[in-house]
Amino acid sequence: MKLREIKKDVEKYIDQEIIVEGWIRQARFTKNVGFIELNDGTIFKNLQIVVGKELENFEDLQKEHLSASLKIKGILVKTNNAKQAYELQAKSVEVLGHSDEKFPIQKQKQSLEYMRTIPHLRARTNTYRAVFRLRSKLAYALHKFFQERGFIYLNAPLITASDTEGAGEMFQVTTQNLDKLDLNKDGKVDYSKDFFGKKSYLTVSGQLEAEDYALALSNIYTFGPTFRAEESNTPRHAAEFWMIEPEIAFADYNVCMDVAEDMMKYMISFVLENCKDEIEFFNERVDDTLIERLTKVKDAKFARITYTEAIEKLQEADVDFEYPVKWGMDLQTEHERYLSEKIVDGPVFVTDYPKDIKAFYMRRNEDGKTVAAFDMLVPAVGELIGGSQREERYDELVKSMEDNGLKLEDYQNYLDLRKYGTVVHSGYGLGFERAVMYLTGMKNIRDVIPYPRTVKSFATKN
Amino acid sequence: MKLREIKKDVEKYIDQEIIVEGWIRQARFTKNVGFIELNDGTIFKNLQIVVGKELENFEDLQKEHLSASLKIKGILVKTNNAKQAYELQAKSVEVLGHSDEKFPIQKQKQSLEYMRTIPHLRARTNTYRAVFRLRSKLAYALHKFFQERGFIYLNAPLITASDTEGAGEMFQVTTQNLDKLDLNKDGKVDYSKDFFGKKSYLTVSGQLEAEDYALALSNIYTFGPTFRAEESNTPRHAAEFWMIEPEIAFADYNVCMDVAEDMMKYMISFVLENCKDEIEFFNERVDDTLIERLTKVKDAKFARITYTEAIEKLQEADVDFEYPVKWGMDLQTEHERYLSEKIVDGPVFVTDYPKDIKAFYMRRNEDGKTVAAFDMLVPAVGELIGGSQREERYDELVKSMEDNGLKLEDYQNYLDLRKYGTVVHSGYGLGFERAVMYLTGMKNIRDVIPYPRTVKSFATKN
Repeated sequence: MKLREIKKDVEKYIDQEIIVEGWIRQARFTKNVGFIELNDGTIFKNLQIVVGKELENFEDLQKEHLSASLKIKGILVKTNNAKQAYELQAKSVEVLGHSDEKFPIQKQKQSLEYMRTIPHLRARTNTYRAVFRLRSKLAYALHKFFQERGFIYLNAPLITASDTEGAGEMFQVTTQNLDKLDLNKDGKVDYSKDFFGKKSYLTVSGQLEAEDYALALSNIYTFGPTFRAEESNTPRHAAEFWMIEPEIAFADYNVCMDVAEDMMKYMISFVLENCKDEIEFFNERVDDTLIERLTKVKDAKFARITYTEAIEKLQEADVDFEYPVKWGMDLQTEHERYLSEKIVDGPVFVTDYPKDIKAFYMRRNEDGKTVAAFDMLVPAVGELIGGSQREERYDELVKSMEDNGLKLEDYQNYLDLRKYGTVVHSGYGLGFERAVMYLTGMKNIRDVIPYPRTVKSFATKN
Repeated sequence: MKLREIKKDVEKYIDQEIIVEGWIRQARFTKNVGFIELNDGTIFKNLQIVVGKELENFEDLQKEHLSASLKIKGILVKTNNAKQAYELQAKSVEVLGHSDEKFPIQKQKQSLEYMRTIPHLRARTNTYRAVFRLRSKLAYALHKFFQERGFIYLNAPLITASDTEGAGEMFQVTTQNLDKLDLNKDGKVDYSKDFFGKKSYLTVSGQLEAEDYALALSNIYTFGPTFRAEESNTPRHAAEFWMIEPEIAFADYNVCMDVAEDMMKYMISFVLENCKDEIEFFNERVDDTLIERLTKVKDAKFARITYTEAIEKLQEADVDFEYPVKWGMDLQTEHERYLSEKIVDGPVFVTDYPKDIKAFYMRRNEDGKTVAAFDMLVPAVGELIGGSQREERYDELVKSMEDNGLKLEDYQNYLDLRKYGTVVHSGYGLGFERAVMYLTGMKNIRDVIPYPRTVKSFATKN
C-alpha cells in the first residue's frame, strides 16, 4: 500500500499487518536492531521501519545503500515519540532494487546548486519533494479557482508566427537541416520548405489568442508553457516557464483586479490548508517569515494606488534608491518592495502606468499619457502579476500600433476583434513559477521547475 | 450579469429587471417587434431578447449586424414555449460595439473547413463553443481524477535534447539566425553559440522524465503539449497536441490498465453530467450514436486479450481486411475496430505485443518475443490509449537499447533509475485531442484544437 494511505487513516492500520514499499532515505543499525527511514514519495515525513536481528537477512540489509527499494511486511505500532507517532515493526524485508555507494545523494542536505546537476534524482529529497508536491497542488488550485467561476480553459498555441509583446527574443522552430539549408534564389532561407511553410516561433504569451476566445466565451484562462530567449542569467528568469493568463470580456481593469486579488487569496488558502507539512517545512528550513507573510496577504484588503501617486510617495520617502525615482520610469524591484513593504505595508495594485513603458495593446486613458494597466506588488517579492484593460477601440489601437512601429498586416485577426462587436475586456498574467517561489520561499526559479531551461544550461540529458 | 447566472437560478430572476451583455447571434424583426438571439459564450442556448417598437432605437437596432455587442436592461419573463422557457423583454438596448456585413460568419451552418480559416472567430458559433467548453471541462476532469487519487502533476520540459521514442521527427529550437549561421571551423553549425549551447528540440513525449518523477514520488502524471514533425496530413494528426501521461511506481501493467479503465469511465461520466447541453448537441448534429456509445463504454467491464489471441481471432474472422493479418504486424485501425466492435463488442485492452513493433523501454516478457505493452481499443475509433510496463532491469534495458541502435551515453539518466533502487513501474499516454474527438464525435483534430498546427498549414496569424 501507499504510505499516504496509512497517514490518511492511521487508527485503521494500528496493530495490523500491512505491506509497504518505498526507498531507503536513511538507515542506521546497531548490533541488534536497525532503523530504516522509508519513503515512497506520497508522504512528507518518512516512515520508520524497525528491523530486528531475528530477520534472516538482517546482516545483508546493513549493506544496502541509500535509495535501495524495499518491500516490507510488518505490524504498524504506536510509539511514545511525539515526532514519530507510529512505526512499522518489520516481519520481512525484501530488497526490490539495490542501490550503490555511487548514488549521488548521500546526504539530504546538499547544496541546491549541486542538486541542479541531477534533475532526474533530486525529487528524492525532502526539499524538492516538498516543492514539486506543492507545485502540483497549486496548479490544481488554479484550475479549480477558474473552473468554479465559469472560466473556460484555453490551450493557446505554442508554435506561432506572432510576437505578442512586439519585443523579440523568441525561439525559432524549424525542420530545416541547419547544416544544409533550403535556400531560395537570392540565397536566403526558403521557408516554403519548412514544416509550416513559413517562419515559426515559440510563443511568448497566449494573450492575443486569449482575447479571441474571451470575445467569444466571455471568461477564459490559459495555463500553459511560454518561452523567452532572453539571455538573463538571474535567479528569476527561465527560458521556458508556465503562465496563467485569464481574460475577461465585459470587464474593465477594476473587475480584473478583483479577480486577481481573489485568486491570490485562494492560492494562499489552498496551500496553507492542503500542503501543511510542506509549508511548515519551508517555514522552518527556507524562509521563517513564510507563514506570517502569506497569512497577512490572505487576510489583507489589497490597496490600489496610481503610478503617479506611487512616484510621489517614493519621491517623498527618505531612501537612497539605486535607481532615482522620476515620473516615466519603470519601477524597479527596490521601488516595488518599498511601496508594498513600507508605504502600504501589504499587497498593492499600482495602476495607470505611463503608456511609453507599457505594451501597445493596453487601453489608453483620457489623460493621453497613461494606460489602464496594473501591477500587483507584494511584500518580500515585488511584482507578481501584471495586467491591463485592453484597447478595445479600433482607431485607438491602430494609432498605438503605429506609435509602436508594428505592421498592421501582422495583426489583422487582432484588429478583427475590434471590428465585429468589440467590448471592454481585461486580463492579466501570472508566472506560475514565480507563484511557486512566492509560496515556498524558494529563491531560485531553477529549484521550482522540474527541468529548468536557462541560458547556456541544460547540462544533463533531461 | 453573465447569462449562465440566469440559467443556474432562473426562478430567482423571473419577473425581475436585469442587465445582460452579449453578442447578437441571430436577429429577426417584424414591423412592431424584434427577436434578438443573444449569447455571451457562457451558455449553450442563446437567450431571446424581445425588443418592441416603443424602444427609441428600435429602427437603428434593425441595422445592426451579426456579432454586434449589446447591453440590455429588461424584465425576464416566462413563456409558454417549451424550447425557450423564458425570454428577456427589453426596456433599453445599448450597442456596445457595432459589427458589419463583412463579419465572416453570416450563418451558423458554414463548413468546418471554412471555419478553420478564421480560428480567431470560430468559437462564436454553436459547434465550436460546444467543443471548446467540453474540452475545458475535460481537462479539469482529468486533473481532478488524478489529483483525487494522489497523483502529482509534473510539468515535463518542452525543450529537450532527447528523443524519447528514438523515432526522430522532431522540431529543432534555435536562436541562430538561419540566414547568418555561426559556423565552427569545419563549416558545421556551432551550437556552442546557440541559446542552450547545444542542439535542442521540442519534446515528443514527457515519458522519460515522468519515470524520473514516478521513481521519486510514486504516482505522477503529465499533462502538457508535445510535438511531432510528422508530415501526416490526416484528420487525426497534428504537429502540436496535448498529452496526458501517468506513470506509476510499484505497479505492473495490470494496475496501469485498471487506472486507464477508471480514467476512461470517469471522463465519460464527467462530461455526460457536466456538459449535458453540449453532449446533446453533438448527439443531434455530429454523431447520433454518441450518447449510446459513451454510455455503453462507461458501464462496460473492459476486456483484456493478448495480441497473440487477437491475431488468432482476426485470422478466424470472415473479413477481407485491407492489411492481411499475421503475427508480428502492427494492428491497423480496421483491425482495432473489428476487435472492439465485432469480436469483443466493447472496449478492450490488447496486451503483450511483439517487441519488434514496440518501443525500446517496454519490459520484455519471459517468452523473449513480446513486451508487457497494452493498447486500449474502443468501438468507433480504435486505439485511444497506449501504455506499458517499463523495463526496470538494468541489463535487459541495455540489451534493448543496443538492439534498437540507441547510444547508451544519451540515456545515462534513464539508466541511473535502474541503478539506484529500481522498481516495477508502468505508464500510459492519452492524446488529449483524441479524447476530445472521442467524446464529441468530431472527426477532424483541427476542429478540437483552438489553433491547429499541421503540416504546411497555419495560414492565419493565429
